[in-house]
Amino acid sequence: MERIEHHVSFGGSQEVWKHNSTTVNCEMNFGVFLPEQALRGQECPVLYWLSGLTCTEQNFITKSGVQRYAAQHGVIVVAPDTSPRGKGVPDVPEYDLGQGAGFYVNATQQPWASHFRMYDYVAHELPAVVESTFPTNGARSISGHSMGGHGALIVALRNPGRYRSVSAFAPIVAPGQVPWGEKALTAYLGDDRQAWMQYDAVELVAKASERLPLLVDQGQDDEFLDSRLRPELLEDVCAKVGHPMILNMREGYDHSYYFVSSFIGEHMKFHANALT
Amino acid sequence: MERIEHHVSFGGSQEVWKHNSTTVNCEMNFGVFLPEQALRGQECPVLYWLSGLTCTEQNFITKSGVQRYAAQHGVIVVAPDTSPRGKGVPDVPEYDLGQGAGFYVNATQQPWASHFRMYDYVAHELPAVVESTFPTNGARSISGHSMGGHGALIVALRNPGRYRSVSAFAPIVAPGQVPWGEKALTAYLGDDRQAWMQYDAVELVAKASERLPLLVDQGQDDEFLDSRLRPELLEDVCAKVGHPMILNMREGYDHSYYFVSSFIGEHMKFHANALT
Repeated sequence: MERIEHHVSFGGSQEVWKHNSTTVNCEMNFGVFLPEQALRGQECPVLYWLSGLTCTEQNFITKSGVQRYAAQHGVIVVAPDTSPRGKGVPDVPEYDLGQGAGFYVNATQQPWASHFRMYDYVAHELPAVVESTFPTNGARSISGHSMGGHGALIVALRNPGRYRSVSAFAPIVAPGQVPWGEKALTAYLGDDRQAWMQYDAVELVAKASERLPLLVDQGQDDEFLDSRLRPELLEDVCAKVGHPMILNMREGYDHSYYFVSSFIGEHMKFHANALT
Repeated sequence: MERIEHHVSFGGSQEVWKHNSTTVNCEMNFGVFLPEQALRGQECPVLYWLSGLTCTEQNFITKSGVQRYAAQHGVIVVAPDTSPRGKGVPDVPEYDLGQGAGFYVNATQQPWASHFRMYDYVAHELPAVVESTFPTNGARSISGHSMGGHGALIVALRNPGRYRSVSAFAPIVAPGQVPWGEKALTAYLGDDRQAWMQYDAVELVAKASERLPLLVDQGQDDEFLDSRLRPELLEDVCAKVGHPMILNMREGYDHSYYFVSSFIGEHMKFHANALT
């Protein structure tokens, strides 16, 4: 573990740490914001944030403005990179597969299987690293954007009791039914669509044993809304099985961090209510 | 004039516009945030923001979180690029001279003189473009970071009556006394140090005919504080001549946008008080 960046921010500390991940078999970076309470050693709840396609740990920590709200609520915010990276890690030229596009699954197909285990990384290894390094109190929530919104939903839904709340900005809710997901899941998991279902929020929420506070924000001018995101699929299944879901459709907003930064304060308040 | 980017943000619109500048003889980009009031056609005050070395119009608009506060106070925020750019524009490999390093002066020396007229651009051409394009009410303030803090100070101090207030984050206050400034002013203006004085906030404030609300924030862990910024030079002359100045030294903060974003809300409140 090595701290490679740190900046005072809103009275807390925005840091980037590097560690050797045994799950994805390479060095991984993650951002961590420590509010002033945590710097004093007080045990704090943790919000995990999963970013979207092409992002590293930097996008959310430099563009979302989350630090203001994390400081206000006394929440640690952890933002990992979106995939294994580096010379030994397989990649392709496309932006939506390989490095920067881990899709938060455990790949079973070659050449991906030895590194692309982002599900286990964010659900297990990363929380263990965080909780053994920083002053945490065991309360966790999770959120994310686009591919990372998909990641947040599946990680929360597959681990009942582990997270107090889940939220997402413009998430991919049913990867098997949209082009981004079909391409990635075919490459990482093969053609057997049964294997895809463990990474499909719409499938998982239908079987969920837990009623988890769930908040989704979606821009109505998001260029990917109808073809690649389709939040109505999640809304429909939540209504059918009686799972709570707040879906805010936001007029005029697109898929960018200008959308995320406009509503991250509301998401932090939603999570703080569940965490504290 | 062409709008090349627009995103809904905090109920307003964050845009980037491109235009042919007759002052710097090339295409220039600037960011403009229009709060909801301006989108409805209501005339609003304008805050100009000048960025630091290496920046384009993007840094401030993606990293500072200013939109939240601009929306709250109903202020238009204009953030130009830091220099002329492009194939026909002179440049050198160093980050602190040429493209990305205009220093907000009108160069008199070759090869810079035909393009590097950033003083006239930000003091005259840009406000004229903004005020003929967007619904403005004539009230202006100006702020900036590092080299851009220097720019904000000299533009405000040289144009009494034009700006209601001025602020800066970690500004270069006396370019003739620090390495960044000595290098740039020698290249752009030549060896005659008398010519440099019109771009030196410490010199200008000593002669100011106007008492302008002036706010400076400075991180105490800024790596450039003692060698290249030296805010005490401005504090001393303000005390000597009785010019108002609020100087906030911020424990632990560095020179990054994590510092700017932590206090941009306070600067926007300071300007809004003067503007509205």
